[in-house]
Amino acid sequence: MFAQRTKNLNSSFIRDILAVTQQPHIISFAGGLPDPALFPVEDLKQAAQAMHQNLGSALYQYSETAGLLPLREYIAEHLTVTDSKRENIIVTTGSQQGLDLVVRCLIDPGQKVVVEGPTYLGALQVLRANQAELVSIPSDDQGPDLEALERVVKQESIGFFYTVTDFQNPTGTSYSLERRKRLVALAKKYNFLILEDAPYAALRYTGEMLPSLHTLMPDRVIRFGSFSKIIAPALRLGWINAPQEIIKVVEKLKQAADLHSSGYDQQLVLHFLQSGALKPHLQKIRAAYGERLEIMASALSRTMPETLQFTKPEGGMFIWATLTTNESTLALFTAAVEQGVAFVPGEAFYAQGESNNSMRLNFSNSPIELIEQGVQRLASLVNREQRGTQAASA
Amino acid sequence: MFAQRTKNLNSSFIRDILAVTQQPHIISFAGGLPDPALFPVEDLKQAAQAMHQNLGSALYQYSETAGLLPLREYIAEHLTVTDSKRENIIVTTGSQQGLDLVVRCLIDPGQKVVVEGPTYLGALQVLRANQAELVSIPSDDQGPDLEALERVVKQESIGFFYTVTDFQNPTGTSYSLERRKRLVALAKKYNFLILEDAPYAALRYTGEMLPSLHTLMPDRVIRFGSFSKIIAPALRLGWINAPQEIIKVVEKLKQAADLHSSGYDQQLVLHFLQSGALKPHLQKIRAAYGERLEIMASALSRTMPETLQFTKPEGGMFIWATLTTNESTLALFTAAVEQGVAFVPGEAFYAQGESNNSMRLNFSNSPIELIEQGVQRLASLVNREQRGTQAASA
Repeated sequence: MFAQRTKNLNSSFIRDILAVTQQPHIISFAGGLPDPALFPVEDLKQAAQAMHQNLGSALYQYSETAGLLPLREYIAEHLTVTDSKRENIIVTTGSQQGLDLVVRCLIDPGQKVVVEGPTYLGALQVLRANQAELVSIPSDDQGPDLEALERVVKQESIGFFYTVTDFQNPTGTSYSLERRKRLVALAKKYNFLILEDAPYAALRYTGEMLPSLHTLMPDRVIRFGSFSKIIAPALRLGWINAPQEIIKVVEKLKQAADLHSSGYDQQLVLHFLQSGALKPHLQKIRAAYGERLEIMASALSRTMPETLQFTKPEGGMFIWATLTTNESTLALFTAAVEQGVAFVPGEAFYAQGESNNSMRLNFSNSPIELIEQGVQRLASLVNREQRGTQAASA
Repeated sequence: MFAQRTKNLNSSFIRDILAVTQQPHIISFAGGLPDPALFPVEDLKQAAQAMHQNLGSALYQYSETAGLLPLREYIAEHLTVTDSKRENIIVTTGSQQGLDLVVRCLIDPGQKVVVEGPTYLGALQVLRANQAELVSIPSDDQGPDLEALERVVKQESIGFFYTVTDFQNPTGTSYSLERRKRLVALAKKYNFLILEDAPYAALRYTGEMLPSLHTLMPDRVIRFGSFSKIIAPALRLGWINAPQEIIKVVEKLKQAADLHSSGYDQQLVLHFLQSGALKPHLQKIRAAYGERLEIMASALSRTMPETLQFTKPEGGMFIWATLTTNESTLALFTAAVEQGVAFVPGEAFYAQGESNNSMRLNFSNSPIELIEQGVQRLASLVNREQRGTQAASA
């Protein structure tokens, strides 16, 4: 009865895990959520009042598929660093829909797409749902293994390379400038497109902003932005920044897919942006999340054995920790939940399940005291396991 | 560069037409919009205040893919006539997204789908975007030609039959009880699914409500509901009511497609529904739209020549008028816009362009005086053309 593509549909492993980890006694580093205590509730209420006053009943009518014109103009002018125009922008129902629409416009079933291992699980879901054939290449703390990527693109043409250049989900790492430049040169040489997913780009706490792939090569990069992490996820608003010929095709598919994204929520975000509330709000959440990242990183340094190595992100929401003993983190997960702390086992983030000795730790959604406590609980467990392993091998 | 499916993407003919007809001096019967003057603005403002008070920052967080639990429960209990449970409901980003998701779950490229000629243009767009092979069967004022349908399903299995049973867009007609029963018997005999699109079902002005196909055969019918016509289109909220095994698959695809529909808008609609505002609002818009339908129908009767026949709907938003002289309404459209009145030429509503002598007239979005005036303008034009034709053939 069902179409072929439904065979590739899996419910997100993370969502299944979240159900387990949402009990109140568990300190959860598992989710990927912003902290609701930091949402700009008052500013959004004021934006709502302003939009009701300004618009009256017009607020509730159908609107343009590409998104409200002043919102697209605001995004083009203030939220992109390139000289994008409104014709390069389409508003989507979260950046997740942006991904789905672009994949549907670019990929026929069976076409090869290159991703990093590990990469964003939601992208893997979209690619699988659209029957892409996934090729996974490794990455390190500077970015993807470009020799591995070149071996793939040399052999055959690919649909595109999908990446999160800044503060990746799940690893937290960002591409170095050198790796960005080499990647762009490779894309030019072998003529492939890049999908640059950038939901965390504005969440930098330390270090210097680096040019996006889109800035370096606007004609071959499709960049995805999101209001979920910088304003509020419930509003489900994001955007695509891409060459106009691609935006035009995506717009036609979006018309069939949902006519347009909520005009009410678009007006709310537009009024929030026009009030000037974004800048101080970003300062506030950067300070808070930056502190949490510091606390988690220093707690890990203090308490973990040397056999647990972890990334030191300059932004985003995640730290990625790896057991150099190559033990699976899946068994550790069960034990951790029993001890009242949770994370996401790393295997789910690999297209081909090529590695299972890592874990994703979210620091944005727990207050400082709980980060300390949670890492403590996790560390006693890891230390105990390590001693067990040493004893067994002795 | 683009996927195969993009070759089938057409921007909606209607949207292109709307751009022409939105000049202020034109009386437009072209759009398919509810009247913003009738939106429940005050009730929605109160619902917004209540949700802010009840939920605080929780309003803005991520939520479940299937939709807010109390909203699904409300829909199952109050907005379906069958004994549906919340497990049979998924909330979608407008019923348009519901259609897209279900089609993607059911249809592989090249699979046959049967539609009526004429039918809802947005469904044709979704089906084409998903590479379905369209088979169009004729219909009359009682419903589809079931002999034609049987000839198709006898020959080969189809993905499904798509229909709007109540107050169809574009014709305004509803299936008779007898035709509903025979269609359901046919679906059982040949074991095919039916997609029953029901955005206008609550907008009945005269006559008696008839059982939906979903009521008659809940295990083989997927029914689409919408808040766009009964509350407000900008909120982009609709739902699917279907067997649980189908909902489960659709939910997995929706997770990849946009994670979930706006939680903010879902809370707004939920608070609106829980306040009891829907019932009086429906009474208000039924009275207003019912009057407009009466006015348009009697103006057409009074002013048009016998060579223009038109449907007499009991609800919805459209009257469908046909030139029995078989002249194309496309030429008439250009002349009409020059005379300051607009409609949608009928050809776009046919999957295979099999007919071009009809027009869709919307009565919900014009005040009474303008309906009278607009029909007058159109009638002088049609009368003039008819006299021209008679003179030419004399």
